[in-house]
Parts: sequence; C-alpha cells; structure tokens
Amino acid sequence: MPVRGNAVYAQSGGVTSVINASAYGVIKAAMEAQFIDDIYAGLFGINGVLDDKLIDVSKESFEAIEGLRYTPSAAFGSCRKKLDIEKNHHEFERIIQVFKAHKIRYFFYNGGNDSMDTAYKISLVSKEMGYEVISIGVPKTVDNDLPITDNTPGYGSVAKYNAVSIREGSFDVESMHRDSTKVFFLESMGRHAGWIVGSTGLAAVSEKDGPHLILFPERIFNQDEFLAKVDEVVSKIGYCVVAVSEGVHREDGSFLADSGLKDSFGHKQLGGAALILSGIVAGELGLKTHTAILDYCQRSGRHIASKTDVQQAIACGIKAVELAAEDKNGFMPVIFRESNNPYDWSIGEAPILAIANQEKKVPDHFVRDDGYHITDAFREYATPLIAGEDYPPYKDGLPNYVRLKKVLVPAKTK
Amino acid sequence: MPVRGNAVYAQSGGVTSVINASAYGVIKAAMEAQFIDDIYAGLFGINGVLDDKLIDVSKESFEAIEGLRYTPSAAFGSCRKKLDIEKNHHEFERIIQVFKAHKIRYFFYNGGNDSMDTAYKISLVSKEMGYEVISIGVPKTVDNDLPITDNTPGYGSVAKYNAVSIREGSFDVESMHRDSTKVFFLESMGRHAGWIVGSTGLAAVSEKDGPHLILFPERIFNQDEFLAKVDEVVSKIGYCVVAVSEGVHREDGSFLADSGLKDSFGHKQLGGAALILSGIVAGELGLKTHTAILDYCQRSGRHIASKTDVQQAIACGIKAVELAAEDKNGFMPVIFRESNNPYDWSIGEAPILAIANQEKKVPDHFVRDDGYHITDAFREYATPLIAGEDYPPYKDGLPNYVRLKKVLVPAKTK
Repeated sequence: MPVRGNAVYAQSGGVTSVINASAYGVIKAAMEAQFIDDIYAGLFGINGVLDDKLIDVSKESFEAIEGLRYTPSAAFGSCRKKLDIEKNHHEFERIIQVFKAHKIRYFFYNGGNDSMDTAYKISLVSKEMGYEVISIGVPKTVDNDLPITDNTPGYGSVAKYNAVSIREGSFDVESMHRDSTKVFFLESMGRHAGWIVGSTGLAAVSEKDGPHLILFPERIFNQDEFLAKVDEVVSKIGYCVVAVSEGVHREDGSFLADSGLKDSFGHKQLGGAALILSGIVAGELGLKTHTAILDYCQRSGRHIASKTDVQQAIACGIKAVELAAEDKNGFMPVIFRESNNPYDWSIGEAPILAIANQEKKVPDHFVRDDGYHITDAFREYATPLIAGEDYPPYKDGLPNYVRLKKVLVPAKTK
Repeated sequence: MPVRGNAVYAQSGGVTSVINASAYGVIKAAMEAQFIDDIYAGLFGINGVLDDKLIDVSKESFEAIEGLRYTPSAAFGSCRKKLDIEKNHHEFERIIQVFKAHKIRYFFYNGGNDSMDTAYKISLVSKEMGYEVISIGVPKTVDNDLPITDNTPGYGSVAKYNAVSIREGSFDVESMHRDSTKVFFLESMGRHAGWIVGSTGLAAVSEKDGPHLILFPERIFNQDEFLAKVDEVVSKIGYCVVAVSEGVHREDGSFLADSGLKDSFGHKQLGGAALILSGIVAGELGLKTHTAILDYCQRSGRHIASKTDVQQAIACGIKAVELAAEDKNGFMPVIFRESNNPYDWSIGEAPILAIANQEKKVPDHFVRDDGYHITDAFREYATPLIAGEDYPPYKDGLPNYVRLKKVLVPAKTK
C-alpha cells in the first residue's frame, strides 16, 4: 500500500499540442487514487515548487479539467530550467523543503530529456534528505528524441501538422509554378534530431508531391550537391518543395540559421535556415522562391492534432499514477509498439535513468541513401503516429481552448 | 435563350483554400446548363487559352470533381499574367482565335483584381472582333480587397487559419514566457491591405490573448512607438504577441521586408518583415523573440477552412453560370451581407468594370485609434466569415486532396 500524501504535477520544456492531455490523464487518475489527497501543479514547472507557488487543481472547474484534453501549450505554465545537482544543490534542498511543507509524496514531471534529468535527481535526493518522494517522469517532446519509448507524446501531432502543411504548400506551388514560385521551403523544428522534418516526407506519395528534398540535421549540408538536387527536380517537374530542419548545418558545425546576417541598423537577424537557403537558391539558380517558417505554430497546432498522439498522451498520464501506486520511484511510462499492421501499442515503463540526457536521432536506415528523403522504414514507423483526427470544439470560428484559474495554495515556506 | 456553345473555366492569381470550390460550383452548374455543351478548363489559367491547352473536364472522374470542394490550390493550374490590351493586343486576338476554334461562347475567369481586368477586356473585345463570348468573373482572393462584394471567397479561410494560428501561438508563449520567449511574431500575407493580418485580432478576447499588437500595411511603421508598445505589454503581462503584415513599411515607403539583408556569401536575404522586427526587438529591448512566417501554408490551409467561405465560394461559382444564362457579359457574382445577427448573406451581381484594378483597404473605423489593433466593427465584420469548420476527408493521417488528370482536348490552332 503506497504512502498517503499530496501530489504535484508540473510541466517542463517546450510545449506540445498534447502535454495538457497528459496532465488530464495524471489529474483524472490522481483524483481516483486512494493514496493521493490533494493535487497541486507547479506554476511554470519546477519554478512553482522552488517559489512555493503551487496551483490548487481542485479549484479548477470540471469543464476546465476536461478542456485540458484538447488545449495545446502548458496550461499550468512551463519552464526552461535545468537543475544542476553539483552546482546548485541548494535548489534540490529547496524542492524537498517545499514538498515536505506541503506533505507532497508524489511528483509527476512532464517533460523531455532535461526534465527527466530533474525528475531522476529528485527521485534520488529525497530519500537521502530524509523525506521520501516518489518521482515519476511523464514523457513529452515534439522532438521525439527520447530513447526506449517507441515515440514520445507530442511528436505525432507535430508530425501531422508538418506533413499536412507541406502537402498544402506543395499543392500551392504545383498550381502556381508556371509563372511564379518554383522552389518552396518549409522550415521545421528539431535542432539536433530530424524526426519532425522527416515527418513531412509522409506527404510525398507521388512524384508531384512535396517534399522533394528533406534536409536532416543528421546530415551535413553540402551546398553544391543541394543546388544540383534542386535543379534536377525543377528541370523534371517544374518546381521543387524542400523541407528544412532548423538545425541544418555546414561541415564546420555552424548552423545555416546562424549566418551572421545583420540589417542596416546592425541588428542581428535571427534564425531562418530556410530563408538563408531561399536566398542561396534564388541567387545561385535564379529561381523564384518562397519560405514558410512554422515555428511555434507547429508545436501548438492542436487544431490538427493526431488522435493517436492524444490517446497516448492521456494513457501516459494515467500510467504515471499507476507507477506511483506501485512505488516505482524514478520510473517513466513508455510507449511500446506491439505491431505495425494493424498498428497497436501499449504503455510500459522504464527507469528514468535510462532515458534522461540522451538523444535518439533518426537512424540511418530511416534516411534515403543520398540523405535527401525518408525511406519506407521511416514511413512505416511514422504513419500510424499521425493517424486520426481529434478536433477541439469551436466557438465563434475559433478553437475554444481553456485557460485555467491557477489559484495558488497558500505558501508554507519562505 | 442564350446561345449554345462550349465553356472555358480558368483560375488566376494566388491560390486560396476554396478557389476549387468555386470551380466545383461552375462545373456542376455548367453540366446542368442546357446552353453549355463541353466544359474545358485553362491549363495554368489564361495561359491554357493562349497556348491552346484546354483541359477536357469531362475526362475527370466524378470523385475528382466532387473532391474540388475540399482541395486547396488551383487544381487546373493558376497563372500570374496581366494582359495589357494596349501593348499586347495580339494576345486578345489570340484568345478569341482559340475561343472561336473550340466554339467557346462562355468564359469564366476565377481571380482577383488583375484577373478581373482580363475578364473585363475579353468581355469588350470579343464582339468587336466578330466572335461573341460571354465573359464572367468569379471572385477569388485571400486579400479580400475587391470592392462592392462584402467579402471575397478565400478570405474567410485564410482569416480563420491566421486567427487559429495566433491563438495557438499565443497559448504557447503564455506558457513559456517566464524562462523563455517573451515576444512572438506571426507574419501574415497582404502586402497592401490589412484584412488578413487584422483577422488575427479575432483571437484576442481577453487581455492575455494575442495578438496584443497588429501591424497593418495601411499604417506607417514607427519603430520607437512600436518598441514602446511592446515594452508596455511585456511589462504588464510578461509577454507580447505581434501580428505583422508582410507589407509593413516605413515612412519613406520602403518595406521592412526589403531591408537589404545579405548573407556572408552576398546572397540577398529574401523577405520576412517579422524576422526583421524580431531582430529589432531582441536588439533594442533585449527580449527573447520567436517568429513564424505562415507564407503559402495560410492560403492553402484547407484543413482548417471556414465553412462559410466554402459555401460562398461554391455559390459564387453557381451564380457565375446563372449570369451567363442571363447574357450578363462582363458581370461578376458578389456577396451581399443581408444581416449581421444572425449573419445572413446572398449572392448578387456587379459589373466587372466596377471591380477590376481597384483595391479595398481596411477602413479607418476598423482599426483602433492608435493603429495597433482592430475595433469592434472589424470584429463584427469578420467573425461570421470564419464561422464553421468544413474538414476534408483524411487518408493515412493526411487530407486526401484530389489531383486532376488534366487530359487536354486536341489543339485546334497553331
């Protein structure tokens, strides 16, 4: 029988379309769990614990909690905070102090690699500090770069958003290319891993479908080779659609996005690997280009979320509470692929230690030999992850997302 | 009784999510019209007529024609070709030659301002050249800048796409701003008219909702004033979401997007008013920024089309054939607003001459006095235009858009 106590749920890292669906899973399961009394949430992730600013989840309406299923972003606030146990041991002491003051025995941390590092360290230090807390990780990242788990909640939806966007952009260029734009660039997130940019490849079913070329961050950008590829596609079908990872880099490791552009006032021009490429293609090949940069819209694009992704995000949240019930301190729910045809999945578990601070890149056999597209293996992997639509409700023509009241429980520490 | 003959439908200008819905309306109505024998479509707009490359619509499957209702872009190919009757009179002679050779008595031209100019001129010259053709305009433009018509098919969907995108991006920044991005820019199309960028304002319902600032192309960009506004919003709520028209310009008329940026290889950096602003805010206010540029994705974003827009696009297509039946050479269907609460509309008609080559900008009373947001009048105008969802069918997680066979009828001229 697990020890009775309160629970804190917190969100960390870049948001996704379905991190709140995991929150919904955790909260619903925690409300039913006999061993959990009050459920709190960190205001802006672990900051809320450090600041003793804990949201009283019981003050939220039933409709608001239900609305978490279809609301993108981090409803409780997220953070970009990496805790270093060597340098900032006092922060861990502070966390345990706040946990103790609020009788918190369960900590659910919903995030990616860095966040899992924090969850893992909390799972270690609480015992040695004399106040035991069960720390459970809940996986989340659009980057899909966590090991062990077959995929990560958040990825299916960003993949669907990207694949839909490039299909629509490709239809656009196909119909305009005779007199207008010949090369269209779409920039995707994923600085180190090409899972997101690779997902655009799912839209390429026939020769006319973009993307015709995909620039992975796992490959070194070769300008001459790339220009020859673009030229070849344009010569053949009249236009070319290129999916670009924000992390495209040259042989010396420098990101294309960091090309040191400045405007006439000396302001550094920020980002846009695809815009840099757009300028190169226009300048070197003399072709009219256009560029879309999806940026945050892709990771918060809940209106076109993957149904599979939503279901898995909720399931991971529920499983996290089950792991807590089983005293699985330092564990995290993971998604296992049971079969491909038909796609079937289950939720298992893994020690956070095996997951934290690691980065799962796109394997070689998922990338075409020449480096410029996906293989059937990638397609088989990613297609089920973008399957199904799960539309949010609308009001006045817009998704009716919820915003929480975020009533704080009285602070008990200074 | 109208004269019997064949008909040509052609698409022109930048594509929209619903121009094919208008094509569907024209084709369905033309198939039922007793006075129209064969229905052809121009391959790449008026180019198809000039080249004697006419698509035989009867060769397309029933499913493909039905699929036009939910397929974005220009399924028959579009063009960017302005015909100048003074300088290029031979092009009009050529058009009439091809019409005559194919017994074409009806011409439906689906486009914006420039295209309406072409449709109008054809309506004039055919009679004087001794071969009468009824030339009918079909309105289309995401820019919503055609006069007389209350709104233009294509606008409601691009407006919905923009408003949805900024709502989602705003939720993102709201949840991340404590440790990360403080100012988020979203760049919208509309170089001369602010209808699109203004539509983002529909997402701003409470103080926390972006956009907090909208930069209209109808207003002159004042850098100091703008920076003060951003600073004010960030001071108040912690973050700021800015919707930027691609056409934002300085007092001397120069577009921000044309700031003469070059990369280290001397390639001109193309576009991105929002990226320029992003650099300015980061440099001058020291705030972390992020930028999304929707580009073509917004005008082809059929997956989140407005149901109102789709219905109006089809209705305009059907009405065009009715105008042809009534011998209304040189006319165009227009949308009339019958009432606001509840929103009701009807399709009327107007002479193309009153519409071609004019540009309807956002009126002053639709823009807040300080120039940085919309008024209730804009909201009342645009809200019904984004109302309703009209989802396309999906296959393997992606919209199952149709691509036509585009079988050409044998050329009859050289």
